[in-house]
Amino acid sequence: MIEYEGKAKQIIPTAEPDVAIQRFKDSATAFNGQKKAELEGKGEINAAMSAAAFLKLESAGISTHFMGLENARDMRIKRLKIVPLEVVVRNVVAGSLSKRLGLEEGVTLKFPIVETYFKRDDLGDPLVCDSHVFVLGICSEETLAELKTRALQVNSVLGPWFNEAGLTLVDFKLEFGFDESGELLLGDEVSPDTCRIWETESGRRLDKDVFRRDLGDPMVGYREVVDRLGITIGGEHA
Amino acid sequence: MIEYEGKAKQIIPTAEPDVAIQRFKDSATAFNGQKKAELEGKGEINAAMSAAAFLKLESAGISTHFMGLENARDMRIKRLKIVPLEVVVRNVVAGSLSKRLGLEEGVTLKFPIVETYFKRDDLGDPLVCDSHVFVLGICSEETLAELKTRALQVNSVLGPWFNEAGLTLVDFKLEFGFDESGELLLGDEVSPDTCRIWETESGRRLDKDVFRRDLGDPMVGYREVVDRLGITIGGEHA
Repeated sequence: MIEYEGKAKQIIPTAEPDVAIQRFKDSATAFNGQKKAELEGKGEINAAMSAAAFLKLESAGISTHFMGLENARDMRIKRLKIVPLEVVVRNVVAGSLSKRLGLEEGVTLKFPIVETYFKRDDLGDPLVCDSHVFVLGICSEETLAELKTRALQVNSVLGPWFNEAGLTLVDFKLEFGFDESGELLLGDEVSPDTCRIWETESGRRLDKDVFRRDLGDPMVGYREVVDRLGITIGGEHA
Repeated sequence: MIEYEGKAKQIIPTAEPDVAIQRFKDSATAFNGQKKAELEGKGEINAAMSAAAFLKLESAGISTHFMGLENARDMRIKRLKIVPLEVVVRNVVAGSLSKRLGLEEGVTLKFPIVETYFKRDDLGDPLVCDSHVFVLGICSEETLAELKTRALQVNSVLGPWFNEAGLTLVDFKLEFGFDESGELLLGDEVSPDTCRIWETESGRRLDKDVFRRDLGDPMVGYREVVDRLGITIGGEHA
């Protein structure tokens, strides 16, 4: 039984009410669902990479919803009540930031910035500032501050991990939620679907932008990322 | 000699280096200059209303660039080094906020919110959050906080002034700048070009939205605003 069907993942209930299976699909979408494709192997790569990233983060003291891999594309997760914000950390100018601020893609920002986007497909996931978050009642001031701090902590852990593999973590999107006991945990996934990852030396794109912008076979870059990070596909990181 | 030609105003130097004339034009533009018109009498109405608003704000202790009216459309102002942000205060949902957050126009917000837009015509004056302001080096954290505080103070003075005249101050845009001595002052104008003003009872629009949305003769609303506020056109408020 599929409880929730997302664009790139499914949520499947388990016998335990506070545990679910997060299944990583091969489906890829971009531009708010206008562009679609099936990318063979994407689900397994993203499951393996997310598992490795969550373990890395957990070992650095950042709590996540990750409980283990069931198989190559199914991840056991703690159920969360998701805060409806996409929390984006940016280290280097790319994508919408370039368009918004008129900055050239590839320029390293003076310091990492955190942005929040309201998770509303029907509105195109708009950028929201703190005052919007509060007036909409999306979360408390305390929670928003905590989301931003955690997002920067995640950046401090993932950034060097990528750098050591010759990769640059340009930007990434996180989602957070509260578990049954009210604890705030990192949820969702960490993968080339949700991170912009460039080969440091060449600036070559190894992430979903290859799909978005028709720059070649997206799976070549996805595989290169997991290979460079020493991640094996197939559930060994559970 | 015109030193700067804006969409709705000109800046003209004077013999005093730190004083300029701000001339209010009849020209109206919308949608980043795509829609244009000459609205006879607009310059004089906006000059008179801005003068009255600046006097009102000064008497409430809020410093502005206003020095007096020279004639019906020319205002003597202190020269400012403008902070390139449009500081917007919103009391009621309208315009871009409605589109961005999917909220119905006319809904009163739980509390007034302040937004900042980067003054860059070529980028369409994009919404920017605090982190964007800092990473762009637009202004310091201290200045940004002060801009927001001042904007809410302006709202606290103008809101009741409008309410007593049967008008609702839906939202408005302010610009601030530093004078020669480094003091932060309110600049620009306060008029139906820069404020959304609705007749409280009917919700009838009395501002630039009438021009933007082709809702009739914009000058009817503009004149009603100054009439209701007891402002006389022609420089008497200097």
